[in-house]
Formats: sequence, structure tokens, C-alpha cells
Amino acid sequence: MKLSQKGEFGLIELIRKKCGWPGKKVILGIGDDAAVIKSDPNKLLVLTTDALIQTVHFNLDYFSFYQLGWRSLAANLSDLAAMGGRPVCCLVTLGLNDGVSVENLMQFYQGVLALSKRFDCPVVGGDIVRSPRQIVISISALGEVEKTKVAKRSGARAGDLICVTGELGEAQAGLELLLKKRKNKSLQFSPALTRKHLLPLPRLAESDFLVHNTKLNSLIDISDGLASDLHQICKESKVGAVIYERKIPLGSKAVQAARLLKKNPLEFALYGGEEYELLFTLTKSQAQRLLCKARFKLTVIGEILPRKEGVSLEKAGQKSKLLPQGYTHF
Amino acid sequence: MKLSQKGEFGLIELIRKKCGWPGKKVILGIGDDAAVIKSDPNKLLVLTTDALIQTVHFNLDYFSFYQLGWRSLAANLSDLAAMGGRPVCCLVTLGLNDGVSVENLMQFYQGVLALSKRFDCPVVGGDIVRSPRQIVISISALGEVEKTKVAKRSGARAGDLICVTGELGEAQAGLELLLKKRKNKSLQFSPALTRKHLLPLPRLAESDFLVHNTKLNSLIDISDGLASDLHQICKESKVGAVIYERKIPLGSKAVQAARLLKKNPLEFALYGGEEYELLFTLTKSQAQRLLCKARFKLTVIGEILPRKEGVSLEKAGQKSKLLPQGYTHF
Repeated sequence: MKLSQKGEFGLIELIRKKCGWPGKKVILGIGDDAAVIKSDPNKLLVLTTDALIQTVHFNLDYFSFYQLGWRSLAANLSDLAAMGGRPVCCLVTLGLNDGVSVENLMQFYQGVLALSKRFDCPVVGGDIVRSPRQIVISISALGEVEKTKVAKRSGARAGDLICVTGELGEAQAGLELLLKKRKNKSLQFSPALTRKHLLPLPRLAESDFLVHNTKLNSLIDISDGLASDLHQICKESKVGAVIYERKIPLGSKAVQAARLLKKNPLEFALYGGEEYELLFTLTKSQAQRLLCKARFKLTVIGEILPRKEGVSLEKAGQKSKLLPQGYTHF
Repeated sequence: MKLSQKGEFGLIELIRKKCGWPGKKVILGIGDDAAVIKSDPNKLLVLTTDALIQTVHFNLDYFSFYQLGWRSLAANLSDLAAMGGRPVCCLVTLGLNDGVSVENLMQFYQGVLALSKRFDCPVVGGDIVRSPRQIVISISALGEVEKTKVAKRSGARAGDLICVTGELGEAQAGLELLLKKRKNKSLQFSPALTRKHLLPLPRLAESDFLVHNTKLNSLIDISDGLASDLHQICKESKVGAVIYERKIPLGSKAVQAARLLKKNPLEFALYGGEEYELLFTLTKSQAQRLLCKARFKLTVIGEILPRKEGVSLEKAGQKSKLLPQGYTHF
């Protein structure tokens, strides 16, 4: 069904029916001029936003609308995780063209809803407008964080260990497989290899565990690539760093994909965006205790150094400068 | 200067320098994964978002980047006003194409900043991405409202009087003049006639006065046109309404513009969007007291009726059905 058959207000009504599940903190959700939300007097608010533009961030020949909805919200939830926050609610703005049907729109919200229910982050509003060419998705998320648990980029200190959650490289590997498949339709691979790109899982549970069970000196989510995000920590904290190539936890799917693509999986791990793992630093003693307690994968990959040391990658005993390569929009 | 000469991170740094004024409630602004904000334990949060797409919502041949920045934020602040809220902070997301220079971007933020300082609504974050075709602007704003002062669309009751702030029709009149001028370059008119379209002023002070000095039964901002927004109140409140043509406060600039355009200024007032005046209902006794107290223009334009009466316009003693015409995206 065409969007025009429902009309703008008809579409909002459909979305309201689909997404209007009552969050505990939602006083007023979709349907008024703005949403009204209860805040927790003992917490601080965390606010973030993330935009995706068709052909720049995604292509519809390999993204389903469900995956698109999921992934758009995931980017925001990952930013909340990167502050040590928990989600409260989100706003979803869409710019749609004539190629989008009512069914596509509902699939998109199905994807948003799946993640939003999983992490208790109801959709409380948004905007829906015509975009003649590219589809535009802009989501904002509100979260809360305990006053003493705010995890910034700027607190890393020389001597800190550098850790990451999970495994790296799989998001970029998935993207490169999908892009290659666009050019070479006969390329065969398991859909599992692309899952982390299409349906990434924000590390909210891990972030929550970290801020409650250790003292982080700095925290960021890997959205621009390990190298670029480590540079962000170093820049904001005014420190240097070294990471050890052999310690970087390459995902097995990244390794498989690299073989298919005849590329080095380390490149995916260092420079691949939208990984949504957490990168953080903490003192050695905190790290030791944490590694015993954590029930999810954590890897120490390097150490924070004084600023003058710069940011480097150590490979077979040889240090080389680690450049903040990665995707840049301009 | 081209955006690519600064690069994505360079642009964020420029914006941070320009917009990073310390709001009283901002713990952490631009530059981390998310902003961190203090909330007032005695208030509820208000959350809204609004998107503008080039060629759909604006054209650069009559909008300056300064005006665009101003207007994008104004739409959000007006939504906060429509809930009885006060601004806390905002997030600004931009999708930019190669036609936009660094200077344009700074002018855009100059416009955002002018309004954001006027209403104490600091920019605390956002996103900046490439949009190959149309420029995309998506702003979200966070506000606060006292628990007993939330003004919804849904509380209008039969017998309520219907009021509006200010004068109507000037925003649409301005838009139509600008569109006509695009086709007919020789058309002459005073820039003052287009001001309400290009640099609208959200009615935050008026909203604040209203929620503190009277008891509103319903409130909405006129963003889709008087007729359409009155229908929204009636739909959400399950009531009907009548408005009196002779009472509608037509702006003098709307009348001037209508003469130039050979149109009926009443059409601008009824069906013109982005007016950003407030439309509200309250009991007769509340209205009487309010009209004595208010130091800004307020006009009673009609009355709320039982639902079965529908929504109508009375003109020279004759009632006719008032249709919710106005701009619709699909």
C-alpha cells in the first residue's frame, strides 16, 4: 500500500498503535506535540542522536526494513551504553520517498520495536516527512545514568589498561561481504557472517555491569573503528597509547570473511566502523579484579601511555604509528 | 571553504567551539558519545523532534543558512511551548551535501545559537553526516514541565472557549510570497512580510504565562494550520467545535500579502502551516480572568461543542463544515 493511501496522520496512527506500548516512565507517548516522561531524581539524563542516510549508511538491496529499524536504534543505544547509561525512551524521525510502502514502514517499526522492547526503550514520538530522494532515519534516545557512574572519554590515565568487550572485525567484514555481493551476485557465504553489520547488539548489559562492578577511567563505543575511537579517548584524555596486535580479539566470522574477501581481518578490526563493542580503560588492579568477575568476553589489548608517546600498534615487537583511519563523512 | 577541508571531526570541533556555551544544567555537552544533563526532580521531561528536508520544507534560494538554523530550532521550541514546557537543551543533526560550505554551516549554527541563547536551550550534541542530495535537518529538544502544568491536546470540554495567541496567516503569507517571487523575480514586497515564515518566534513566554496564570483544558501549537490543529484537539478530546470567521485575528501583514497575491487572507489563517501561535481551550470563567491579566495578544475565536456537532466555521450567521486541510506529507 502506498504511503499516500494512509496519509501523514493515518501513518502516525498506525505507528502509534504499533509502538504505543506503555513504558513505565512514559506519561504521554506518541500523538501530542511532545512526549512527557518521568525522570528519576537520583539520576542524570543522557541524550544522544544518530542519523542514517540511504546510499551513505545503508542500501536497500542488502538491508531489509526490519534490519534497518533495528540498526538505527542500535546505534543510539550503543551511545547510551558508552556513557554507562540505561535507556529511557526514543524518538524516531523518518524521511521517506515514494519507493517506501506502508508495509515497509511497518517492518521498519517491527525492527525498532524488537530492540526497543529488548532494552526497555519505548518509542515516544518522532516525525515523519517526505524525502524526495534518499530515505533518512534520525533517532534520538534519552537515557539515565547514576550520578557517580558517568563514563566519559576523557578520564584515561597513563598506566591504565585498554580493554574491549566481545570480538572485533565482524561488523566491517559483514559490510564488505554485502558490498562485494552487490557487484558479484555469485558470491556465496553464510548469512551469519553479516549479522553483526545488519543486526548489531548494543552492549548495554556489559556497560551496566562495568559501571557497577569496576571503576572505569574512560569508555567509548567502537562506532568509527578501534583505531579512530582509541584516538578519541587519547585526544580527550590527553594521553598516548599502545595496543598489541596479537591481543586484538578477532571474531571468527571476521576471519572467515577475510578469507573470502582476500583481506586482512586485522584491518576490519582496526578500521571498521559500527562495531558497537565497548572500548575502555581502567587501572591494572581494577582490571585484574574485573577479569575474574565478568561473565562476558573481555580482552586487554594495550596500555595507556603518556601523551608524548603517541598512539601506536605493536606488532612482533615493532611499534608503528596507529593512524585514526576509518570512515569520515567529509 | 569545503566541508572536506575540515573533515568530519574538524567540523564537530568547530561546532563545539561555537555552540559549547555552558548551560546551567549541562554536565557534559558536545564531544562525547552522548550529552549528560541534570534533571529537576520536581519536574517531568518533555521530548520532541522535528525534521526539515530541502525542497520539501525549504529552498535555499529564499532561506539563508542563518534563518534555516533559527527556524529548525523554532519548530521544536514551539512543540515544548505546546506542552507548557520550558527548554533544557537540544540535539542538532545535519545531513549535508557538497553544496554546503564551512561558512554556510557556521551561519546555520549562528541562527540556531541566536534562538538557543534567547530561550536558554544549549546545543549539547548531534550528528553530522553526508546527504548526497537534499540537505536534511533533524533537531530534537528536551524540556521540562511542572507536574501539574502538562498541557495536552486531549482535555477540551464542551463549553470551553477556544483562544489563540497573536495574529494568524502571516507565516503562510510569507511562504506564498517567497514562492511567487521564485517564479516572478520582479515581484516587490517588504521583507517584513516574510519574517514570520523565515524567523518564527516560538511562544514559550506566552505558554509559560498561560500554564501559570490559568487552567488550560487543552493546548496545541499551530504547526499544521488552524483548521487542522483544531481538528487535532477535537479528535483527541472527543469533542466538536465552532469558530467564528469574524473573530479570527488576521495579521496585518497577512492582509497586505493577500492583496499582493490576490488571495483571501482567511485561507492563510485557516490552512497555513508553521504559524507557531498557540491554540488552546479553557472554561469561560478562566477565559474572562485570563483576558484581564494577559499582557500579550489573545483572541477568543470560538467554542468547544459536543462531539456530534462536528467542527465548523461560522460566517455571517451560516455554519459550514471546517475541513482539516493543510499540508500533508503523504
